[in-house]
Order: sequence, then C-alpha cells, then structure tokens
Amino acid sequence: MSFFPSSLENLIDKFASLPGIGKKSAQRLAFYLLSQPDEEAKAFADAIREAKANVHCCKVCQNLTDGDICAICRSDRRDKGLICVVSEPRDVVSIERGREYNGTYHVLHGALSPMNHVGPDDIRIKELLVRVADSDVEEVIMATNPDTEGEATAMYISRLLKPFNVKVTRLAYGIPVGSNLEFADDATLNRAIEGRTEM
Amino acid sequence: MSFFPSSLENLIDKFASLPGIGKKSAQRLAFYLLSQPDEEAKAFADAIREAKANVHCCKVCQNLTDGDICAICRSDRRDKGLICVVSEPRDVVSIERGREYNGTYHVLHGALSPMNHVGPDDIRIKELLVRVADSDVEEVIMATNPDTEGEATAMYISRLLKPFNVKVTRLAYGIPVGSNLEFADDATLNRAIEGRTEM
Repeated sequence: MSFFPSSLENLIDKFASLPGIGKKSAQRLAFYLLSQPDEEAKAFADAIREAKANVHCCKVCQNLTDGDICAICRSDRRDKGLICVVSEPRDVVSIERGREYNGTYHVLHGALSPMNHVGPDDIRIKELLVRVADSDVEEVIMATNPDTEGEATAMYISRLLKPFNVKVTRLAYGIPVGSNLEFADDATLNRAIEGRTEM
Repeated sequence: MSFFPSSLENLIDKFASLPGIGKKSAQRLAFYLLSQPDEEAKAFADAIREAKANVHCCKVCQNLTDGDICAICRSDRRDKGLICVVSEPRDVVSIERGREYNGTYHVLHGALSPMNHVGPDDIRIKELLVRVADSDVEEVIMATNPDTEGEATAMYISRLLKPFNVKVTRLAYGIPVGSNLEFADDATLNRAIEGRTEM
C-alpha cells in the first residue's frame, strides 16, 4: 500500500535499490532531496547522467577514467614494469592513499566466485595477460582481497602468468600496524609468525 | 586529493551530501550505480527530476502530493472535522499505517526551534489557522513529536487555536505497547501513571 504520490514512491524505490539502503533510509533520502532547491536536485540528476556517460574503463589498466587512458597509466613517473592487480577501483584508491606504490595497476572488476557464477571470463583477466605479453612487465603484485575468492583469483592468475616468465608476488600477511595482538585472529597470527622478518 | 575522474568525484560528492551518507558509503553507491546498465542509471536520474517536478504540497493539508489536493483531503470517507497536526510527511505515513485514524492531516514541515532559527513563520502554522477558520473543524489533534521542539510547537499552536473554540487534543503519553517496563525511562513511566485509565 502506497501513501505517497507515485513519482515520490518511484524515487524512494530507486534509492532503496542501492546497496545498504533500506526502505526507511530511502524515504529519508528522497524527502531530503525534495526539500532541496530545484537546482540542487537537478544537479544530482545531472551528476548521475554525466558520470554514467563519461566514466568508463581505462584501455590499459581497466581502472575507471573519463579519458581513453587513465592518469596513472599516462604518467611518466610511474613504473610501467610493475603491475598491481586489484579487484575493484576502490582498491586502487586505498593503495594510492599510502603514497608509496609507484607502479601501475590492473583492475579485475571482481573476483572468481563459482558460487556466484563469476568465472575467468567475467573479470578482466584476459586484458592482464595481453598486457603482460605485449609490454616489458617485470613484476605482477597480486593485491586481491585476503578472502577465499581473492585468494582463488590470485592463485588462478599466478598460474596463468607462469609461462610469461614474470615475477608474481602476493601482498604480505601479518598483524595490522597499530593493532593489538589480543584481537588478531589465529589465522593472521599464524601467518605473521610464518612470515616473520629479521630485525 | 582526488583519485577519480571528475564526473565520478562529482557523483560521489552528491551522494555524500545526503543525510547519513558518509564518504565511503557515497563511493560505494556511486560505484554501484556506474556498474548498473545505462537504462538503470538514467531511470534513477529521471526519478529525481520527475519527483522534484511533480511533487509539491497539498493546498489543503500541506502533505506531499502530485495533484492539487492530496488523496486524503479528496476522499469522501475521511472526517474533515478532524485534523491531525504532524511535523513531517513521514509522520502521516506512520499514522496511516495504523489504519484506524479516519480524519485529515496538517503537515507543518518542521517544528519550532529557536536554536535552529525556525520560527512560527518558517513552518505551515498560518495555513492551519486559515483551515480552522474557514471550515467546520471540530477537533485538532496535536501529533508533533514528544521532544522539546514538538512539545513547544504543540503548545504554541494550541494557544493560537483557543479563539476558534475548537477542541485541541494531544496524543497520549505512556508505555509503548509490547515493550518492557524495565526499559521504560522515568519520564515515560511517570506520564503513564499520571494518565492511567480505569479498566
């Protein structure tokens, strides 16, 4: 049963279709948007259209960009011999935030997940192989998530990369900096002990 | 520092401007929307424009509607002699959900709040007085929130309504149905005892 005019109901439904937004939050967001000045609401609608129209994947690394090739792939100051493979564009942001990594990226747009019917052809693995085959890549860092799907993806890709004679590495496992041993889970602690370094 | 193409950054900012949506959630929502088919994203943008263009306040009760007069005010089956005064359109939905109230509403679109510079002219009080003056209203139920601002608003309006010789009532205070005495706060329990009814 609907208590709202249909176009408002429709807007609420749209908000509710977003991940993590329930019916109540969607109502609140829709009401808020309606309470804003006309230009504000119009700007929001335009932002969606424009982002959807302009943003696509970089031809080289598959990261989101509004040009043909993204800023990182275009930059002279990035080491093109180093490719960091991540699952999602947001992972690029996470690593860039550290300001230490100086190589390029490859965004898979997902991770292998047989349960969810995501196979090797559903993520950008082929594009990575073409890159490694066509250019002078020295090292590929697998930076997929440390969960089952991320691990499987890293494993799968590292096997595919074997014939190319390129160094394949994986992010280190261990205790997070600034955390407390008490709260580290067993698997992490075991990995941290396994991977201990001399000091 | 921005790691995203500008139109994506713009969309993220728009989402982050919504109440209760932080930067991280805004990123997630923007990425989700970009991952949807073109029609989906377009439909979202259109929903915003259409809701903003079509939805406005009912001439009578100030509730949101896409006509001149809302469905409740138009209905023959609603008791026009009874007006329930609420702060926000969502409060109408809450009361309608109970399926017992058979009168009409008046939506104030806010509550008096000197701290936030919301005075009597900033909410739809004048429209209520005009309604009470011009039509046969028997009772006005003050259903503003049971917080400081809602109480002040109810008190203020009830005083303005005095000269019109109309019955003004307030929602009952007491313990919520299905709750536990143990968790009721003192003020609520005191009000529940004050307002006790014979059984």
